[in-house]
Amino acid sequence: MRQSLLFGRTLREPPAEAQTPGHRLMLRAAIARPLAAGFYTWLPLGFRVAKRVEQIIREEMNRIGCQELEMPVLTPAEPWKETGRWDALEPITFRTTDHNGREFMVSYTHEEFVHLHAKQEILSYRQLPFMVYHFQSKGRDEARPRAGLLRAREFVMKDAYSFDADMAGLDRSYKAQHGAYARIFARMGLDAISVESDTGAMGGDIAHEFQVLTEVGEDRIALCSNCDYRANLEKATRRIEQAPGATNVPMPTPIATPGVTTIDALSDGLGVKASAFLKTLLLRDGGGEIVAVVLPGDREASEPKLRKLLGLPTLRFANDADFAAVGGVAGYVGPVGLRGARVVIDRSVQPGSYIAGANKRDTHLRDVLPGRDFQGEWVDVHDVREGDRCPRCGGRLEIRRGVEVGNIFAYGTYYSEKMNATFLAEDGTRKPFVGGSYGIGIGRSVQTIIETHHDEKGIVWPPQVAPFAAHLIALPVSDADVRAAAEALLAALEEGGVEVLYDDREESAGVKFADADLIGIPLRLTVSKRTLKERSVELKPRAAAAAELVPLAGASEHIAGIVRGWPK
Amino acid sequence: MRQSLLFGRTLREPPAEAQTPGHRLMLRAAIARPLAAGFYTWLPLGFRVAKRVEQIIREEMNRIGCQELEMPVLTPAEPWKETGRWDALEPITFRTTDHNGREFMVSYTHEEFVHLHAKQEILSYRQLPFMVYHFQSKGRDEARPRAGLLRAREFVMKDAYSFDADMAGLDRSYKAQHGAYARIFARMGLDAISVESDTGAMGGDIAHEFQVLTEVGEDRIALCSNCDYRANLEKATRRIEQAPGATNVPMPTPIATPGVTTIDALSDGLGVKASAFLKTLLLRDGGGEIVAVVLPGDREASEPKLRKLLGLPTLRFANDADFAAVGGVAGYVGPVGLRGARVVIDRSVQPGSYIAGANKRDTHLRDVLPGRDFQGEWVDVHDVREGDRCPRCGGRLEIRRGVEVGNIFAYGTYYSEKMNATFLAEDGTRKPFVGGSYGIGIGRSVQTIIETHHDEKGIVWPPQVAPFAAHLIALPVSDADVRAAAEALLAALEEGGVEVLYDDREESAGVKFADADLIGIPLRLTVSKRTLKERSVELKPRAAAAAELVPLAGASEHIAGIVRGWPK
Repeated sequence: MRQSLLFGRTLREPPAEAQTPGHRLMLRAAIARPLAAGFYTWLPLGFRVAKRVEQIIREEMNRIGCQELEMPVLTPAEPWKETGRWDALEPITFRTTDHNGREFMVSYTHEEFVHLHAKQEILSYRQLPFMVYHFQSKGRDEARPRAGLLRAREFVMKDAYSFDADMAGLDRSYKAQHGAYARIFARMGLDAISVESDTGAMGGDIAHEFQVLTEVGEDRIALCSNCDYRANLEKATRRIEQAPGATNVPMPTPIATPGVTTIDALSDGLGVKASAFLKTLLLRDGGGEIVAVVLPGDREASEPKLRKLLGLPTLRFANDADFAAVGGVAGYVGPVGLRGARVVIDRSVQPGSYIAGANKRDTHLRDVLPGRDFQGEWVDVHDVREGDRCPRCGGRLEIRRGVEVGNIFAYGTYYSEKMNATFLAEDGTRKPFVGGSYGIGIGRSVQTIIETHHDEKGIVWPPQVAPFAAHLIALPVSDADVRAAAEALLAALEEGGVEVLYDDREESAGVKFADADLIGIPLRLTVSKRTLKERSVELKPRAAAAAELVPLAGASEHIAGIVRGWPK
Repeated sequence: MRQSLLFGRTLREPPAEAQTPGHRLMLRAAIARPLAAGFYTWLPLGFRVAKRVEQIIREEMNRIGCQELEMPVLTPAEPWKETGRWDALEPITFRTTDHNGREFMVSYTHEEFVHLHAKQEILSYRQLPFMVYHFQSKGRDEARPRAGLLRAREFVMKDAYSFDADMAGLDRSYKAQHGAYARIFARMGLDAISVESDTGAMGGDIAHEFQVLTEVGEDRIALCSNCDYRANLEKATRRIEQAPGATNVPMPTPIATPGVTTIDALSDGLGVKASAFLKTLLLRDGGGEIVAVVLPGDREASEPKLRKLLGLPTLRFANDADFAAVGGVAGYVGPVGLRGARVVIDRSVQPGSYIAGANKRDTHLRDVLPGRDFQGEWVDVHDVREGDRCPRCGGRLEIRRGVEVGNIFAYGTYYSEKMNATFLAEDGTRKPFVGGSYGIGIGRSVQTIIETHHDEKGIVWPPQVAPFAAHLIALPVSDADVRAAAEALLAALEEGGVEVLYDDREESAGVKFADADLIGIPLRLTVSKRTLKERSVELKPRAAAAAELVPLAGASEHIAGIVRGWPK
């Protein structure tokens, strides 16, 4: 490919809106361009990278017997309504209505539709298990698209679906996908770890995310420093040593706390540490009921855990009328004496005495004993934090940021039961399919590769996903000898199966080298008047500091040998 | 690929809704399945065909220097509004609005967006010409989706775009694409002819369609039996010999025609042939004006030509109030004496005297002379028909049905002027890009291949696009020797690069052969107890009547040799 013809120009400076190193480099190197907030076009250079990423995924899906097909982008509303996701997904999806009034969703995922196909194509257990996948555009109406391809509003996802006759079969399919994912990310050059995750909008119980740990990630991951426990904070738990129950705790008595409405202020004012208090949050759940969430004063509630508990896509805090309805007083709300609220107690709360709001202006209660002075369901809604103990081994937990590049869900019969998607089982009865789904975002993977493979000058592509193997630079292209030598080498390399971007532009050495560093092709080859004096070409790997001279005679074989040695 | 694992089952009978031979076979052979009216999933077998078709297109696009990229499915409204297509395309597109109230269209084509990219990436004439393309899902809210993949509401299209500095450049790009299209369809096994076509929603003047002539087509094509004139009837014209003007025609006089309101009835009643009458249609144009269209009584109006003339996506006939407003009387309307209507006269109307409606109940006028008794613009709005004369050579025109598998448009500066998409020209001024666009529908191509490559038993794939090269049948698979021999052959074939569908199902010979004929893979290989007695495998090309026995020793090389000999 001649660079003079390549569509897409490099930028000296990143656009002001670029938020992360990968976002900046992706735009500067002409990998992709936005057409609207969160909507991107792959320019030719980025398209080549995206196709290499897809091909790695395709090969690993095929290797485990997963079959490629292609479902449409627009999906009819009825199956979404059968599973209840038409309403649940409304806030983050795009809808359209055709001219006959029929509703469609721009596909979010395809669980409903692959179940429809399974109902039609699979008559008996003898056709099970099977797995299918496709690469298809997905729409997500993100309120805040973020950092380029890390969180876009349209993106191509590889989504795969497994269908088994029973849970043991699902376990095998899930493990096969898990293994394929580990190979896929390794082949892409991504150091992705598998972490336990919440099932969210997918349903079911067991789910893992593949996370690449990097500061630009939005997710927070708990990792045990001792064992292999790894979990998204949406799902992470911790070991809590139960303190012995306090004995002879006197009944609660009020203390005057005029104008003191925060745990910090109370802690300072009373000279007692934050963990001696209870904090009580009033929220509404999906059914409109008022819920009081009780936590120790030193712990934060986890938003994702609360959302799941309350069955809501976003938290709804109680309003003034709600406070009045349950007898709560803002700033002085506590679990004792609330009327008609559902009380949930985080399991961080210990069986000892606490100071809590008195539901009375300027007043708190001391000697509040959970279980004696108030009742509630015990739940896990607190955020795990650095230094907490691992739920599995008791080791120290660390918290890191990560980008979720893939996720896998074992949802079992969650969809098949709702959709009456059954097959004729070996025992002659009809049974629901037992399924899982398995996603990888292409654009996010590509940008995560950039986020984790760059230096101050530009991208440093892992060879497996690089848009070209070699970047050949003629300096200057106006010199007939240089051009002839460069084009002879180009022809020999292409003949030998090496994909080359040939910089045939009439630009200065500075511009060409800066572009080569920015674009980040693994091998830079320079033919110049200086190298021709030595009958050589300069070879500089992008990831190496030093260049070497390689004799032109045999150069193409030498370079093809390097390329053949790369991981596939 | 083992057929026992293949997702998608063949159907003995076509679903009742199937409309054409290709539609029936596409469904029966598990090529694709509908998810809603006009929305299809490619099942694994069909997916393989679609990808082969895409790969042929990709290779031919790359060969002419067209670069692959990928633009999104959802496209923001603003650029569509700049070109006026937001409103114009409303009736046949899908729209959505995000949660911030911003409007999007499910992409119809991408002219507007590729111009946006050109504005950003192309600074100077030195970067011209360039061509880019992508494969992307398109949405068309067809009121009547038809015949499976022939007219779907979502489909993947390859759309390419050329950008040149001037019309001479566009002409070169257009010719390069025209040549690529000819190679593409020939490689797919489609006998597509290039015909002149209307530019419709694309704008511009010059356009061609690639049409495959088949009775299942929706389009009607005029072909000259003498020269190479070929045109879609939407655009076709004919040579009209102008009759000498009539002299001494008396002034119009009324004739009583009580209750006679059709040309046929008038012709019978008065004993005068249909061509002696004028028929007058009253319609409304895009601006709401009433238009009287005057044609000879023996010619039909062309709907597409009228739509174009009136600037409307569908025809709107005049209502009672419109008749009253211009003084027309239903059944007796004529061009003489209409008040306030825009009159257009088809150029089939000759300068002689005619019988026409008198705009008075039960009355016609004889001796109506165009140009004397009424005035109007002369236009071409009649339908060309079999036996008309070629506009180019005067030869006889034939009318055939066709499926449009591709189309190319030279729209010039139609978009760039509306969007102010300019580049710095060699003379230092800013000039608008000169462009063309070039589309091929993947699904329609695949089904058209089936429509034109099948027999009474099933599909007969051209080898270049077949899902597999060979269909290996073990009969019965329960026989250990048969299975061992079949699987040894399978391994040898795959080792030799031959893609094989291996029928390892426990089914009867009848079922397996019927499926093989239905699916239509080019080479059928049968290993049975009978062939093993001869140490042979039976080889039967799908397109041939006879089978032959091939010794198992060397069979894989023999078959690989056949496959290597196929056109690529």
